[in-house]
Amino acid sequence: GEAAEFIAREKPQVVAFVQAETSSGAYQPGKAICDAAHKVGALVIADCVTSLGGMPVKVDETGIDIAYSCTQKGLSCPPGLAPITLSPRALELLRQRQSPPRSWYFDLKLLDDYYDGAHRYHHTAPISMFYALREGLRIIAEEGLEARWERHRRNHLALVAGLEAMGLPMHVAEGKRLWVLNTPRLPEGINDVKVRKHLMANHGIEVLSGFGPLAGKVLRIGLMGASSTQENVVFFLEALEEALRAEGYTPAGSGKSAAEKFYKSL
Amino acid sequence: GEAAEFIAREKPQVVAFVQAETSSGAYQPGKAICDAAHKVGALVIADCVTSLGGMPVKVDETGIDIAYSCTQKGLSCPPGLAPITLSPRALELLRQRQSPPRSWYFDLKLLDDYYDGAHRYHHTAPISMFYALREGLRIIAEEGLEARWERHRRNHLALVAGLEAMGLPMHVAEGKRLWVLNTPRLPEGINDVKVRKHLMANHGIEVLSGFGPLAGKVLRIGLMGASSTQENVVFFLEALEEALRAEGYTPAGSGKSAAEKFYKSL
Repeated sequence: GEAAEFIAREKPQVVAFVQAETSSGAYQPGKAICDAAHKVGALVIADCVTSLGGMPVKVDETGIDIAYSCTQKGLSCPPGLAPITLSPRALELLRQRQSPPRSWYFDLKLLDDYYDGAHRYHHTAPISMFYALREGLRIIAEEGLEARWERHRRNHLALVAGLEAMGLPMHVAEGKRLWVLNTPRLPEGINDVKVRKHLMANHGIEVLSGFGPLAGKVLRIGLMGASSTQENVVFFLEALEEALRAEGYTPAGSGKSAAEKFYKSL
Repeated sequence: GEAAEFIAREKPQVVAFVQAETSSGAYQPGKAICDAAHKVGALVIADCVTSLGGMPVKVDETGIDIAYSCTQKGLSCPPGLAPITLSPRALELLRQRQSPPRSWYFDLKLLDDYYDGAHRYHHTAPISMFYALREGLRIIAEEGLEARWERHRRNHLALVAGLEAMGLPMHVAEGKRLWVLNTPRLPEGINDVKVRKHLMANHGIEVLSGFGPLAGKVLRIGLMGASSTQENVVFFLEALEEALRAEGYTPAGSGKSAAEKFYKSL
């Protein structure tokens, strides 16, 4: 709606959006943005850093021209690579580009030459990272991409059931929530730093704080790739209940029971 | 000489040089360049990609302000990181910089902030690479840096003795040669591609060709880090003799014997 109007009015050459917003916990597949952008001839670049491997990315169906991601989140490989994909149209525009890029490091024309052309040396590749990525992709293929999405969705729903049972509402409306990063609102007067320190000190669980306008108001709880498991969800809910009680908050109900009930209902 | 005159005349703000030239096989520590550059107030940037871990770099003694290298050559770690060092003067200039850098990726001010300041998030670090680098540095500390240089020097000298005995003169004058990358001239009429293919096909040895004005005229033989061993030198000389004979060249003498004689003389 809003984005489509803006795009139609401004007629940009490039539209960029974040598919999985790690600061807020919101997901937008991007179809509406891509349709609006393509109507004015713009190229769409999507930040899929937090979605790839945990939620649908589907660049072709959505109409994303250039998508990039990382290896250490949904793909659960070591950090160090940024997978990228270009649509035929984006590649065509790249090949027609006359002006030099701002930085040698990210000269996609040289990379294109390397992969699809003369195999001209661009840089020394971080070989070990490629082996790690290949192994990560093999594990994903073994699980099946759709089964992997479903696992992330299920564990996200169980976590949300638990959080809501405890009296912590989600910051993002239902249907727009990330399955890989969950942002419950903290009860009024509860200090997020103390809760997070309790989780780390007593259970070795690292949960992030909100930032910008959400600083101190939400927790950011990751359930990505290998870490998205039933065991982790249940263990986390118990630990969070303990941490909240230590700060003087009495949960409305048992998060653990609500999550277990959800799993039993499947 | 030539560089010093040029620097005195042009008075640049920055002087950059390559300490270990992998295309030619030449080494220049950089003292003369640094002295000339500092006389006109210029900052010196040195490419130490091929020297670090195999030959003296000595940034402080030499006067190099900014040096960068890689992990996969003399340090013998997996490729994927670029170690960098800045002198206090370079750091001071960086901190005074007002204009934005051309690329976020290499924003040293942000990195400075991260390491020495607020620990503000710059990027997700390739953690596995840091573990690999640490292990590589531990191995170097165990051997001792000077002992490591001496090992590279010794194996280089043995290789040169062998090559010269076979009738292959070195492209670089004595005293200016890299210990980590050796560039013998090929005999007139010998095809470098065929020699290199023979080495690869029959012995699994990869040797690089010359490029630019040296294309087809020299071989580029690496002896870096873990690969700089007596066994490798002797094995390579035997394999090269075989490859040259296959191409119709009869070596003037035995490279293997000359290298072995050199090792016995130590």
